[in-house]
Amino acid sequence: MKKKIVLATHGNFADGIYHSLEMVFGHQENIERICAYVDSSKDYQEVMKNCVKSHDYEKENLIVVTDVLGGSVNNEFMQYIMDYPFTLISGLNLPLLLELVMCSEEAVDESLRAIVKNAGSSITICNDLVVCGNHMDNNF
Amino acid sequence: MKKKIVLATHGNFADGIYHSLEMVFGHQENIERICAYVDSSKDYQEVMKNCVKSHDYEKENLIVVTDVLGGSVNNEFMQYIMDYPFTLISGLNLPLLLELVMCSEEAVDESLRAIVKNAGSSITICNDLVVCGNHMDNNF
Repeated sequence: MKKKIVLATHGNFADGIYHSLEMVFGHQENIERICAYVDSSKDYQEVMKNCVKSHDYEKENLIVVTDVLGGSVNNEFMQYIMDYPFTLISGLNLPLLLELVMCSEEAVDESLRAIVKNAGSSITICNDLVVCGNHMDNNF
Repeated sequence: MKKKIVLATHGNFADGIYHSLEMVFGHQENIERICAYVDSSKDYQEVMKNCVKSHDYEKENLIVVTDVLGGSVNNEFMQYIMDYPFTLISGLNLPLLLELVMCSEEAVDESLRAIVKNAGSSITICNDLVVCGNHMDNNF
């Protein structure tokens, strides 16, 4: 099944990290962004509710990635986690997003735990790697 | 000693996550951003070199946080890691940035490994937390 990824953050973080991804992989049709609380005239609770409520789960998997566990954006989505079959991941960073995008649509379900674990390990003090002689180079 | 934090990423990610941080904690004097490769007339290799070369290490600690290990922004800083006493962390996300900002200037050195480890664990599949009844709420 196809996958749709929604990046949902306080402020412009979602747009910013998408811009970074776009530089590496080009435009991604299946990624949407919610930059919450940027426009004071907009009801973001409604935007987030609609995001999970109006999604066609028969057609596509929905993966929502938020900025931080316990933040108000993540808390909004937590409310709907028992009622709609979407996946909610917190702690958005670029290694996570790159792996989610690169993962084939069929493999997403079974690879998700490994992707999240790898993204966690990707937060690294690089000085330690130089001392260990383990300098990585992916060249992008 | 005071600390200066530089967020360095491909594209607008650095500005975006700073905007998110600013919504929570307000303006941060000691944070700079490098949104690399956004302006094609700018020599970003030079910008990154100057960032570590011109820093006054007697006055302030320097912590550079990049988007992804093995990416070209991180690789640029890796070149200078043996010559200048700065700390380079890859895998920027909001939990990492919030902890770095909240950590007192005196405690940064000894807390850095714990901060990086916590930020790694903060990348979480939230559906698992609901099943475990471990729903966190920090209210920001």
